[in-house]
Formats: sequence, structure tokens, C-alpha cells
Amino acid sequence: MTSSSAPQDPTPEAAKAPKDPWDLPDVSGLVVGVLGGTGEQGRGLAYRFARAGQKVIIGSRSADRARDAAAELGHGVEGADNAETARRSDVVIVAVPWDGHAKTLESLREELAGKLVVDCVNPLGFDKKGAYALKPEEGSAAEQAAALLPDSRVTAAFHHLSAVLLQDTSLDEIDTDVMVLGEERADVETVQALAGRIAGMRGVFAGRLRNAHQVESLVANLISVNRRYKAHAGLRVTDI
Amino acid sequence: MTSSSAPQDPTPEAAKAPKDPWDLPDVSGLVVGVLGGTGEQGRGLAYRFARAGQKVIIGSRSADRARDAAAELGHGVEGADNAETARRSDVVIVAVPWDGHAKTLESLREELAGKLVVDCVNPLGFDKKGAYALKPEEGSAAEQAAALLPDSRVTAAFHHLSAVLLQDTSLDEIDTDVMVLGEERADVETVQALAGRIAGMRGVFAGRLRNAHQVESLVANLISVNRRYKAHAGLRVTDI
Repeated sequence: MTSSSAPQDPTPEAAKAPKDPWDLPDVSGLVVGVLGGTGEQGRGLAYRFARAGQKVIIGSRSADRARDAAAELGHGVEGADNAETARRSDVVIVAVPWDGHAKTLESLREELAGKLVVDCVNPLGFDKKGAYALKPEEGSAAEQAAALLPDSRVTAAFHHLSAVLLQDTSLDEIDTDVMVLGEERADVETVQALAGRIAGMRGVFAGRLRNAHQVESLVANLISVNRRYKAHAGLRVTDI
Repeated sequence: MTSSSAPQDPTPEAAKAPKDPWDLPDVSGLVVGVLGGTGEQGRGLAYRFARAGQKVIIGSRSADRARDAAAELGHGVEGADNAETARRSDVVIVAVPWDGHAKTLESLREELAGKLVVDCVNPLGFDKKGAYALKPEEGSAAEQAAALLPDSRVTAAFHHLSAVLLQDTSLDEIDTDVMVLGEERADVETVQALAGRIAGMRGVFAGRLRNAHQVESLVANLISVNRRYKAHAGLRVTDI
């Protein structure tokens, strides 16, 4: 082989061409674990991923509770305690309540080392006027996860999904996009591809973790929307 | 006329039925002022409202600059200094840069008294990693406006619009919803109705002013979307 200037050769321009943002990896072989998988959001996500053909393990503090919930979900979902769920999964979704967030992650630091962690926790407070944003010391739930899990690859996604719609077995599609945030493009793209496995959804890159707080706390606004319009609101990003 | 229990009479149940959230007032006769109307966002909003048939005045520190910009926009748009714009308008959109926000509003407190003020300012910082949220001491730009304008009715809206799309005269519709926040339902509905005057848009109630920060700062995420997808992203609220 000799060097050539034939047109079919990669040119410097082609080499520098930006990657197609919709060119996402095949994630069908990844095992998805869901911490807090017996909660409403966790069950809903587990159901949708399993229904899409993904191998799913739901985790709970109680393995028995996780196994019971898994049996109800069907579609091959398994249940285990949180530690085993983390160990056996490639991608671990954190869907625990905000007030157990730090403690749960701290206790799983070893099991989550090297894993792709997807935080979908929304730190919110509630009073008689409705929901409002809580601001974690680290900036956001996702940044708290990143601080507590220095050996994991932390992303944030799946904040704006209705647990009611996710769990509604009569719905074939969920009409929403999923904003995915993270520091490493490869990790973000894996999560985008996972979101895209659920019928109706697209995973959309939406910035770095330092911009996670507003994505998490926008759920307070969606709760207002839901109350006013008697809806289960989601979000579509337009012009993409 | 005697009282009767005929079915056509309003029943207590009917009287308590929640109002249709899409039943919005006729706002076609309102004069819309745009402070910072010579900036990109201000010009874009002024153009769209005027094109929809609304009477629009754009304001600037310099009346001459405002008049020049108004002449370029056409559609009957007028230009004036900020104070005259505020005085002559029923609804005043605040589209000034964040770093002039407090000073501009303080200087117009009298002119804005009694007016419906719509803050659309996004407090953002920028560095080599892109945009990030700034947190005003009052919580958000909208709450700062409310604090500085105790005699005005302050709402927040029009944060997520692309100035490029708004100003593109070849576009007949803008594919996005507008999240509208505020404390008084009548004021919020007026702003929702105004948003609905722009072809393609819906004005959607999205909570109280205490939840404005995340709506304002979500623009940092949309900037990331725009960069990755080479787009002018907006947002649609689904299931409503």
C-alpha cells in the first residue's frame, strides 16, 4: 500500500467532521440495574427496559422485596439486594428517594466502582403550595453522586418521566425525550442509546453535570403542569 | 322567574368544576412593550407579536436606536425609550441582558407600577466549558423583578425561544411551547394567551415564581443541545 490522494481516502476535512450525534452505540447486551427498583419510578423504568428486551435487575435494601417486585414485572426482570444488583449490572440507574440518596451511594461505593451510573433523582421539597427545588450542597443529586463515587462514571438522565405512564402496560410508547447529562461523551451516548431503547423516547445530550440541577428541579414545574392540566407531562426537545 | 331544580340550572358541582386550563382571555387588544427590544431576543419577540397582529412598542435606553430597530421590524412596531415604552404598554416584557436587569427595573419602578411584567431573562455565566446557571440572590431573575417591582404583577415566560428562529421571517411557525410562571392565575393566563398568539406556540402554566430558577437556567442545557445537534432547540410539553 502506498499513500495516495484518491478521493476515497479520508481527507483531513473528513477526519475532522463532527460525529453524527444520533450515531449511538448498540447497548442491547448491557445489563441494567435499578437501585430503588421497587419504588414507582424504578419499577416503571425497569418495566420499560425489560419490555424493550434489556436484561434488568431491580435492587432494593431487601432482596425478598426486590424479587417480589421483579416477579410482578415479568419480562425476565430479576430482583436482588442493592449490592448484588450493582455488582451484576453494567449500567446502574439510581432511582432511590432523595433522602436516602447519599447514604445508599456511600454504602455501594465498591460495588459501583467502574460502573456507568445514571442518576435520575430529583431533590424536591413539598409544602402546601406544591413542589419546590432543593439545592444539594454539591450542586445537584448527580454531582453528589459523582462526589461520592469517584471510581464510577456518573451521568444523569430519566428525570422527567411519569412513573404512571412508564408502568401503564397498555401504553406501547412513551411520548417524551430524555435529557442526558455527563462529562464523558461515550458514557453519555450509552445512556442516550438506552433511552432510545424505550419506544417513543429519544436520549438527547443536554450538557455537563454542572447543569444537572435545573434538569432535576424542573420536575417541580412538571408537577404544576400535571396538576393544572390533569396530565402526566413530559418534554420533547424541538428542532432536533 | 322562580327558582327551579331543572337540570339546566347550575348545580353546586358544576360551579365547583375546575376551569378549563385552555380557556384563556382575548389579549388581542393589549399593547405589548419589550424592554431591551433592540437585543436579539427582544427583536425576535417584538417581530413575532407584531406579525401576529399585536400592537408592539420596543424600548431601549436610546429612543433613536429603538425607533431605528422598530422601523426595520415593520408590522407597525414603534420604538421609544424604556420609560415611555413601559408607560404606554399593558404588558411589559423584560428582555434586557442579565447584567443590566436589576438596574433597568429599579429605574422603571414607577412606570411599571400596575403593569403586567413578563420577565424572560436567563441569568447565565459562560466559560470555556460552555454556559452555566447563575443563581440570583432573590432565587431567579423573575423573583428579583418581583422584589424590585412591588407594585407590578410579575410573571416569567419566553425563556426557551431561539432568537434566530424568532427573527427568521421565512418561518411561519415556531415549534415550541412557552412555560409561563406566576402567582396570580389571571396574570399567568394573560401571558399564556399572548404566547398562543404566536403561530406554533402554546403558553403552558408551569408553576409559581419560586420555581423560575430552573426554567431560566435550563437555557444553559439548550445551549449544549444546540451545539451538539447544530440546532435551535425549543421544548414541547407532552401529554397536554
